[in-house]
Amino acid sequence: MKTVMEEINVIKAKDGTVAVASAFAGHKEAIKDRDHKFLRKAIEEAYKGVECEDGGPFGAIIVCNDEIVAASHNMVLRNTDPTAHAEVTVIREACRKLKQIELSECEIYASCEPCPMCFGAIHLSRVKVRSKIWAL
Amino acid sequence: MKTVMEEINVIKAKDGTVAVASAFAGHKEAIKDRDHKFLRKAIEEAYKGVECEDGGPFGAIIVCNDEIVAASHNMVLRNTDPTAHAEVTVIREACRKLKQIELSECEIYASCEPCPMCFGAIHLSRVKVRSKIWAL
Repeated sequence: MKTVMEEINVIKAKDGTVAVASAFAGHKEAIKDRDHKFLRKAIEEAYKGVECEDGGPFGAIIVCNDEIVAASHNMVLRNTDPTAHAEVTVIREACRKLKQIELSECEIYASCEPCPMCFGAIHLSRVKVRSKIWAL
Repeated sequence: MKTVMEEINVIKAKDGTVAVASAFAGHKEAIKDRDHKFLRKAIEEAYKGVECEDGGPFGAIIVCNDEIVAASHNMVLRNTDPTAHAEVTVIREACRKLKQIELSECEIYASCEPCPMCFGAIHLSRVKVRSKIWAL
């Protein structure tokens, strides 16, 4: 896998210094790709949920150190539980797997902007929302 | 058990009509008693949760037709789940028992004013909050 520095045309001066502007632009681009990769995963979960008829078309994933810790979708119908939104079920699963009630080292990606309940759950779990980018 | 009309000094006119103001005052009083009864139950649940060391000191109950359908407390530590607040766990339990995802015929009583996540869950479940009275 290419590194950020390899992916961009770094302007290297004779003294070995690198133009900060171009390095920054490349970094932003790489983060965008990363966001797209994980958001795509969240959307795949949403499709999965609809296929299984588990609930509404919403998916979410939780990432830790660039690895997906948990992936889940809306389970309202499956669990007969109006609180089983994708963000809530994925937080629950990640906490269960990591055996901890706070996810400050993790990031959440969701296929849609979270509802107030899910925003509350995100806040309580301390899971990071790296940017204000949602899939939809 | 006394009825509302027995509990108050109803001013009955010769033609059999009842003074509305006093009847209304008595009705309010009876509702207050009902609220106290159910709020006390919610607080008992909070104590139970602390005794079991299941999580924070918060309890909630769901009532349908004057009967308690579900009673629960904060289960954050027990379930390793930051979303397992009393209101969320009691909504989940009531839905499971009644086999439905909406609780518009039910009322919720909580030992403390719900957090934003729980307010979201209350809204989604359609469970009624009869008044803005919480135990604490």
